[in-house]
Amino acid sequence: MQKDLLQKTANSIKCPDAKIYARAMERLANQARPAGSLGVLEPLSARLAGIAKKIDVPLKKKIVVTCAGDHGVAAEGVSVFPQEVTAQMVYNFVTGGASVSVLAKHHGAQVKVADLGVNHNFEPELPIIHKKIRRSTNNFVHGPAMTEQEAVRSIEAGITIVNELMANESPDILGTGDMGIGNTTPSTAVIAAFSGIAPEKLTGRGTGIDDDKLKNKIKIIEKGLNRNNPNPKDPIDVLAKVGGFEIGAISGLVIGAAAHGIPVVCDGFISTAGALIACEFAPEAKKYLFASHSSVETGHSFMLNRLGLEPLFDFKFRLGEGTGAVLAMDFLDTATRILAEIKTFEEVGINNAQH
Amino acid sequence: MQKDLLQKTANSIKCPDAKIYARAMERLANQARPAGSLGVLEPLSARLAGIAKKIDVPLKKKIVVTCAGDHGVAAEGVSVFPQEVTAQMVYNFVTGGASVSVLAKHHGAQVKVADLGVNHNFEPELPIIHKKIRRSTNNFVHGPAMTEQEAVRSIEAGITIVNELMANESPDILGTGDMGIGNTTPSTAVIAAFSGIAPEKLTGRGTGIDDDKLKNKIKIIEKGLNRNNPNPKDPIDVLAKVGGFEIGAISGLVIGAAAHGIPVVCDGFISTAGALIACEFAPEAKKYLFASHSSVETGHSFMLNRLGLEPLFDFKFRLGEGTGAVLAMDFLDTATRILAEIKTFEEVGINNAQH
Repeated sequence: MQKDLLQKTANSIKCPDAKIYARAMERLANQARPAGSLGVLEPLSARLAGIAKKIDVPLKKKIVVTCAGDHGVAAEGVSVFPQEVTAQMVYNFVTGGASVSVLAKHHGAQVKVADLGVNHNFEPELPIIHKKIRRSTNNFVHGPAMTEQEAVRSIEAGITIVNELMANESPDILGTGDMGIGNTTPSTAVIAAFSGIAPEKLTGRGTGIDDDKLKNKIKIIEKGLNRNNPNPKDPIDVLAKVGGFEIGAISGLVIGAAAHGIPVVCDGFISTAGALIACEFAPEAKKYLFASHSSVETGHSFMLNRLGLEPLFDFKFRLGEGTGAVLAMDFLDTATRILAEIKTFEEVGINNAQH
Repeated sequence: MQKDLLQKTANSIKCPDAKIYARAMERLANQARPAGSLGVLEPLSARLAGIAKKIDVPLKKKIVVTCAGDHGVAAEGVSVFPQEVTAQMVYNFVTGGASVSVLAKHHGAQVKVADLGVNHNFEPELPIIHKKIRRSTNNFVHGPAMTEQEAVRSIEAGITIVNELMANESPDILGTGDMGIGNTTPSTAVIAAFSGIAPEKLTGRGTGIDDDKLKNKIKIIEKGLNRNNPNPKDPIDVLAKVGGFEIGAISGLVIGAAAHGIPVVCDGFISTAGALIACEFAPEAKKYLFASHSSVETGHSFMLNRLGLEPLFDFKFRLGEGTGAVLAMDFLDTATRILAEIKTFEEVGINNAQH
């Protein structure tokens, strides 16, 4: 199995600057406000400073990459929507009427849509990132969702997307997003494979299935895991056997962003499955990774625990597309402004009795 | 006691439009995404539509009014900061280096600073809203913080601020904020007076006092309540006996905004004390009121419970100034974009199997 680009990229991830991090924490403590009073945004701003290697971190150019792919397992009735909706939503992203498009516009981010494996042939001139591995994965109930080589190619597609974006548009921060009917099923299988936790404890209602469909979904995930027996020590194997092309690409976005030394924000459940695979393969990538929100989807908290990440907010979203990531990128931008722009006691000449 | 403006304004509050609210909920349910998938932002967007009486709600012009005042009770050592800091921070707001200034700039809001009772004579040409009732309240350990007439005047000052803003700048939404060394003490006394809950269950560390100072703060609040015996059925009495001038003005902002039919977002602990007084006096105002965040300050959740409001986010802020309100105003703006701009299944021609 060839994976030169993946290995090379993973190996090139460097540590953020611990000295700048410490300087940032010191500045925060000296700002003209009660110590620690801006809560979780303070350590986040210091992490961002360590990553950017400066106190005044520019996060002006924000891009969310929404990765789309279809899933053979959708044939098992695990979603309320039919598979065609994946392709229809890609067109909806392009024309700007989708949820992530609207949120991105309001929060100053650009949306790039990437086709990794939608079960539809898009016109080559459609303004999306064309990186199709294959039309839809296989139904993992009957065997691996994809080959190991396809798994590597999907991750490398994500890395290539980052490389191309860095060359052409130079984003300051990346967000991840997903679109793929049925993709909470492979994502649940991914966290089940890594954690060994029973699918019934991890499986949620996705886009809104009823009790009967939920029972069926749990059974399908159990079947897929039993049939394929993914090796929890081998993230490529997990991705190949029970993952998805868009999930692989999201892993690549995380590894690629870390290698370029820029922060990357994962969206909800599907994106965090991708981030998990990325960090199981390249643990250093975690230092560049930020969680956005706490998804309603049951297994999400297990993923975040495993990654050691705290979600930033909880608006009870369960949408995907990158909707949580675009909000979180804006909050992180806010955090950078806090660190850089709020004046210290000394700068404004205020009597600080507490020090 | 004269209170014509207050009574007239409270009486003029009308109900939001229930039909538009219902139309908004229907549109949200038909948008091309899983039903309910944008969580708490959905009902908020419908509430805003009912208030604005239209589906496409403009929340472009956002103003936060940061009300400043000093407190006689600060002499009891209830804060880590000396009283002079209130005035110093007013100057810091004006020059834009304070926390709320930085957050407002990033989230598209304007900050207006109002002096209701700072223990300092500001230059008349200082660009703040000059509405001083008196320099500092009295120490409520020895008697009422202010007279009943001063309490009414402080609320009416808030109403007048809204009237003037509506005449001159026509904001689409208002946020409240506070600055006043020692003001978590009167705010705690306010919720204790209304709820009858013991101060020791409600009292928090404010700007960061230690265990000994916390014990003292609880004792001071108990003393103030015992000495003054505020009548929980009379919000003016509560404000007069254990409140503050900036807290009264915040009550006026809430009543004034409701009377003008625009949404108003209360910040953290002190602002919610003001909102509580407003809604005890004019319960209809609640229909225009939105909570921003969940403050670290202990008594805040008791206030929100009493108001029947859910906080929108929890970044572990404990700063005041309006910092939570400026973020929340932006989230509410996001909610309006969700309602107005995300296309329905029909509009994009997507097969919606779930309906």
